[in-house]
Amino acid sequence: MTPSPAVKAALSSQAIETPSWAYGNSGTRFKVFAQEGVPRTPFEKLDDAARVHAHTGVAPTVALHIPWDRVDDYAALSDHARERGLRLGAINSNVFQEDDYKLGSVTHPDPAVRRKALAHLLECVDIMDATGSADLKLWFSDGTNYPGQDDIRTRQDRLAEALAAVYERLGEGQRMLLEYKFFEPAFYMTDVPDWGTAYAHCLKLGPKAQVVVDTGHHAPGTNIEFIVATLLREGKLGGFDFNSRFYADDDLMVGAADPFQLFRIMYEVVRGGGLTPDVAFMLDQCHNIEPKIPAIIRSVMNVQEATAKALSVDAEALAAAQAEGDVLGANEVLMDAYHTDVRPLLRELRAEWGLDPEPMAAYRRSGWAERIVAERQGGQQAGWGA
Amino acid sequence: MTPSPAVKAALSSQAIETPSWAYGNSGTRFKVFAQEGVPRTPFEKLDDAARVHAHTGVAPTVALHIPWDRVDDYAALSDHARERGLRLGAINSNVFQEDDYKLGSVTHPDPAVRRKALAHLLECVDIMDATGSADLKLWFSDGTNYPGQDDIRTRQDRLAEALAAVYERLGEGQRMLLEYKFFEPAFYMTDVPDWGTAYAHCLKLGPKAQVVVDTGHHAPGTNIEFIVATLLREGKLGGFDFNSRFYADDDLMVGAADPFQLFRIMYEVVRGGGLTPDVAFMLDQCHNIEPKIPAIIRSVMNVQEATAKALSVDAEALAAAQAEGDVLGANEVLMDAYHTDVRPLLRELRAEWGLDPEPMAAYRRSGWAERIVAERQGGQQAGWGA
Amino acid sequence: MTPSPAVKAALSSQAIETPSWAYGNSGTRFKVFAQEGVPRTPFEKLDDAARVHAHTGVAPTVALHIPWDRVDDYAALSDHARERGLRLGAINSNVFQEDDYKLGSVTHPDPAVRRKALAHLLECVDIMDATGSADLKLWFSDGTNYPGQDDIRTRQDRLAEALAAVYERLGEGQRMLLEYKFFEPAFYMTDVPDWGTAYAHCLKLGPKAQVVVDTGHHAPGTNIEFIVATLLREGKLGGFDFNSRFYADDDLMVGAADPFQLFRIMYEVVRGGGLTPDVAFMLDQCHNIEPKIPAIIRSVMNVQEATAKALSVDAEALAAAQAEGDVLGANEVLMDAYHTDVRPLLRELRAEWGLDPEPMAAYRRSGWAERIVAERQGGQQAGWGA
Amino acid sequence: MTPSPAVKAALSSQAIETPSWAYGNSGTRFKVFAQEGVPRTPFEKLDDAARVHAHTGVAPTVALHIPWDRVDDYAALSDHARERGLRLGAINSNVFQEDDYKLGSVTHPDPAVRRKALAHLLECVDIMDATGSADLKLWFSDGTNYPGQDDIRTRQDRLAEALAAVYERLGEGQRMLLEYKFFEPAFYMTDVPDWGTAYAHCLKLGPKAQVVVDTGHHAPGTNIEFIVATLLREGKLGGFDFNSRFYADDDLMVGAADPFQLFRIMYEVVRGGGLTPDVAFMLDQCHNIEPKIPAIIRSVMNVQEATAKALSVDAEALAAAQAEGDVLGANEVLMDAYHTDVRPLLRELRAEWGLDPEPMAAYRRSGWAERIVAERQGGQQAGWGA
Repeated sequence: MTPSPAVKAALSSQAIETPSWAYGNSGTRFKVFAQEGVPRTPFEKLDDAARVHAHTGVAPTVALHIPWDRVDDYAALSDHARERGLRLGAINSNVFQEDDYKLGSVTHPDPAVRRKALAHLLECVDIMDATGSADLKLWFSDGTNYPGQDDIRTRQDRLAEALAAVYERLGEGQRMLLEYKFFEPAFYMTDVPDWGTAYAHCLKLGPKAQVVVDTGHHAPGTNIEFIVATLLREGKLGGFDFNSRFYADDDLMVGAADPFQLFRIMYEVVRGGGLTPDVAFMLDQCHNIEPKIPAIIRSVMNVQEATAKALSVDAEALAAAQAEGDVLGANEVLMDAYHTDVRPLLRELRAEWGLDPEPMAAYRRSGWAERIVAERQGGQQAGWGA
Repeated sequence: MTPSPAVKAALSSQAIETPSWAYGNSGTRFKVFAQEGVPRTPFEKLDDAARVHAHTGVAPTVALHIPWDRVDDYAALSDHARERGLRLGAINSNVFQEDDYKLGSVTHPDPAVRRKALAHLLECVDIMDATGSADLKLWFSDGTNYPGQDDIRTRQDRLAEALAAVYERLGEGQRMLLEYKFFEPAFYMTDVPDWGTAYAHCLKLGPKAQVVVDTGHHAPGTNIEFIVATLLREGKLGGFDFNSRFYADDDLMVGAADPFQLFRIMYEVVRGGGLTPDVAFMLDQCHNIEPKIPAIIRSVMNVQEATAKALSVDAEALAAAQAEGDVLGANEVLMDAYHTDVRPLLRELRAEWGLDPEPMAAYRRSGWAERIVAERQGGQQAGWGA
Repeated sequence: MTPSPAVKAALSSQAIETPSWAYGNSGTRFKVFAQEGVPRTPFEKLDDAARVHAHTGVAPTVALHIPWDRVDDYAALSDHARERGLRLGAINSNVFQEDDYKLGSVTHPDPAVRRKALAHLLECVDIMDATGSADLKLWFSDGTNYPGQDDIRTRQDRLAEALAAVYERLGEGQRMLLEYKFFEPAFYMTDVPDWGTAYAHCLKLGPKAQVVVDTGHHAPGTNIEFIVATLLREGKLGGFDFNSRFYADDDLMVGAADPFQLFRIMYEVVRGGGLTPDVAFMLDQCHNIEPKIPAIIRSVMNVQEATAKALSVDAEALAAAQAEGDVLGANEVLMDAYHTDVRPLLRELRAEWGLDPEPMAAYRRSGWAERIVAERQGGQQAGWGA
Repeated sequence: MTPSPAVKAALSSQAIETPSWAYGNSGTRFKVFAQEGVPRTPFEKLDDAARVHAHTGVAPTVALHIPWDRVDDYAALSDHARERGLRLGAINSNVFQEDDYKLGSVTHPDPAVRRKALAHLLECVDIMDATGSADLKLWFSDGTNYPGQDDIRTRQDRLAEALAAVYERLGEGQRMLLEYKFFEPAFYMTDVPDWGTAYAHCLKLGPKAQVVVDTGHHAPGTNIEFIVATLLREGKLGGFDFNSRFYADDDLMVGAADPFQLFRIMYEVVRGGGLTPDVAFMLDQCHNIEPKIPAIIRSVMNVQEATAKALSVDAEALAAAQAEGDVLGANEVLMDAYHTDVRPLLRELRAEWGLDPEPMAAYRRSGWAERIVAERQGGQQAGWGA
């Protein structure tokens, strides 16, 4: 493979956002296994994120989660990021970890709880003003566990009302990214279960409301790249929460469970003109048993490799075979790009950027893992809920 | 249970449409098992449908499938129906059983095939004019089997173009009902895989375009009643294709696989004001191994029973429990209606309507089954593709 | 329905075991919502379990979970149970909540961890000796998250070795119940993912090793009653962990998600001669958002109602229709029992047993809920991990 | 990658069996699209299979399906094969396409139907004697569509009885391969739904009874390589029916839907010592819309590529990382082999074998496709049921 300059340019401009919470501890409902050296503050999370960017060159922004990353001085946090070559990314709201939210947040039957949840969402926009973040990412754990528990339709009305209030508050250059999720933690019904629901709400809200696709939030067998293609066609794809899954929302490293699916998704992104800053490429993962920083480096590389393969598809040959109804020929063009080993190309690119061609090895040699274990003693480790 | 007059009135006005093709032979890809006495003409299908209505009192219309039910004289067919207490219902198009459609119909890469498919759809509207049918039901088997086989987005453009042309042709009082299907017969991607895609198209087309929910066309675990509630809220629920499934699109008798789900669906219909003529309640089933007429009688009764239970929910008590966040109490109100045996009520109603309280037994006693076996000798049995 | 004396006798002898942990707090990975009045000790859990038995009459035993229910004096615990009309039931091991078990317990690559896990399992048999419990229930969270992480086959060897050591330790009248689970908390592979794996191990171990079916531990669409019928035919069904699920291992109240499935399962139990003390009928649920004691009462009643319906199937008519290949007739016999409202029968039975016919209402009136909120102040609430 | 001699030797000795029916027409329940040039006789199927072997060098045997491939003179068929460098492979029975089998074959309620089905199975062993085939592959479409339709357990008894009779009839060097299938064409219950059921029957029958894994016959999310590893550990893996699927039993080209899964399966085969003649590697696919011969060439190549990758895994490095509990390191070793482009190696190997390095291109250039279209005029095309 001798990549065109356009391919190299596209890969050079790629930006993958890493999530602050993926540097902290996480787990399943059965157990959170704590790891040594885990950050204790938002600042330390940025220190770790800076290592990912330093080794990969394509992870320049970091998503924050409120309240987990709430600080007194967001300017100081931005400065801390900038000094490490990073910028603060999307603000993620959290209306699922307080006792009041047992039966929902913006869709709760009690108006007082709904008001509280809305206030939190609006606070997140305030934080966006302070951090300069462009995107507010909204995921709601809202839903019900039992048929009849609450009224499906009334909850949609409540949801629409809250979204409208947040939309109204958005400033110039700010967007709302609405996430959908098939199930969990609600088991009978979630209030935004699929892309159709998110799309319908975003459509009514206006152009600043966009849908975000979390690759782990679908029913078994769902063709995710179809959704990506459709949302791009509708001008409603705001971004991705990347991760991978075998069964449910496993939140494994993106590309680990089904690398071919990731390639197909990235192909539709490329084909649909989505490889632009208007689509946010974010990771949203949980590293329950593997060390966090190298897992994130690996994940960034996986997205990068899938992108490189997607960019390598011979578009002309593909279109020609498709037009002729040549089923095997068209499939073969796509598969040829997939089967190509793009790792040599990416090593070459990293060398051009002045980076070590092997990010994983370079990180291991850097001593960072040992250093954080030694230095981050005492304090409260970051984690889901911390 | 002492049903209110409103419940009895609602049940008395219920209309469930049976599909002409369910009276004919069907099967799996492995084998079509022929049955004795199966209709050989659209007229004989109406004869059978008349038995279903005669015994249940709630199946007054019959859906046609073109070209399977193409006749020279639709007025004669309408007369045949009327003489038997029936009316002709939705016109179902078929753009999946000709060799030209191997790679699609309205989304086919070849414009000539697309034109042919569109011509068929327009012919179906002509037939609606002739039969007085109000609804055109569109299901497309279009899709691809292999990644890369065709361009997902371009196929959406082709689909939109065809739908617009059909929409344009619709007359006063005519609607287009767009069906979605998760998979089969296309395996990698279907062009209308989910309600979101159907909804997005219908929204752009206008008020005469509505979504139809086939209960067997979803991914495993999909909460269908949520979709029903949402489409009703959006004013976009055109109707149902009822059947039931354990795994894929099994097309078993509605209510046979998960009667509780059917109840929950009918509850959302009732709650959302959907028990009106604006929502078409149609069966779409395949009776591969069981005798067809009694299977359809049973299916009609299953929808009726689920409706009766849904109508029996104590709405006031439910709303009160929901408002209080009483999870168990609210669920209990719903379950109480579900666990109630409504069969005595329905027997009573049938007696009031002058029918035998036991449709299955009455059909068995009627001798119709024996008569059609004796009389329908020779000719070509109706079936999928016939 | 006029139930036969045999039906009433069967219902009178039914015993459903409730799990000590279902009286404590539980949650999802996102949040554990604490409830007021939750037990703080194993003794208080028995107090709550006694209320369930007092109101239902069919929940005489309580499963323990070690180490959550570890006490200094098991004789005292047994006495506490007996004084409340209860007995201690199955001992459930826990080898998933210590840091050492991050990569597995009995299948861990490190032999030291395997030894530790085995020691815990053997301790559980010691506790059985002390409590007089007959069943050791083994569920392993063991598995891997990533392909290649560990060797699938070697882990089976390690598992077999540990099971053999525990089997060897079992005394007279003691059994080992091996549970399987499709996924979670391991996401790529679990070491006992399906009934086949559990069965293969139990077969080699011997007659004291039996398979336990957790109704939430299967792939989507799995026909659980087939597994029940098969295990009964093989003499290898040791018991149930009842709960219900819409998507994954939701651990909702049994019978809440799919009451028809529960009925079909109980029908196969009855038909296969499984309604005996050799099959343990246990609940294993999480009441994350609903109050725990009434949720357990409801669950016990749901199993009881499904059993009553299963017992009511007209076995003779069913066999006759099946022998004739009468598909609709045979299905109708089964459905007739399912659609019957057995709640009047159960109310009648409870009255005969000297109980209030309405357990939920009786519990509400009893004041127990208010009393435990008032009395159980301070201390550490029981919960997963507590 | 510089492959070891052992890798090259393993690839040189690989044998993938192609199925005679994949050269004929097939389709979905909606439509069978006929293709030009399709074989009209078993002899012509062998002619086509010979092209696959000629271009790939690793497809020396052809599976037959009875009655579709019934001929008067099996010696002549064998000769026809041998003259083309082929051998006749497994005999596949068919007890699902006669009207008698509507409610089952060996599990049918009517003993006369069971006797007829058994006679067919025994005839298949006679044919094995005539063809010299070593394997009898048994797939039963048996099952039920509705709960209660027939007795699950009694059907198991009938199945066991038939299998025992066939087993008894097997000669020296003959095996029975029992296939399981999750669903379809039966929708409520299949009589051999999972590997556990097949395994339990094979275990009782004896060493000549082995389980065959069809990669499309599992519930969504099933970890197939776990089953492969387990069956190899138990000495009960008889072979594979390869194909791929996105949703159900799609019967697409193997490796087309999830090439990573195919690699993981082949890795477990290699690791478990299954790359021997004791495990039959067979394709079982339907080429509904793509030309058949090139689709089969592509499928054979896909299995070959997955095998090459599996053989390339650095076993020593993998074992070391696994032993240390190095999650990311172990996964990386596996992924490194997967991401390697093995196509250059296989081209090199084909050149060594005296073949064109590019089978697809060579086939296209061969003119065979045009020749069969021209020559195979008239007669009855082969197809499912033909």
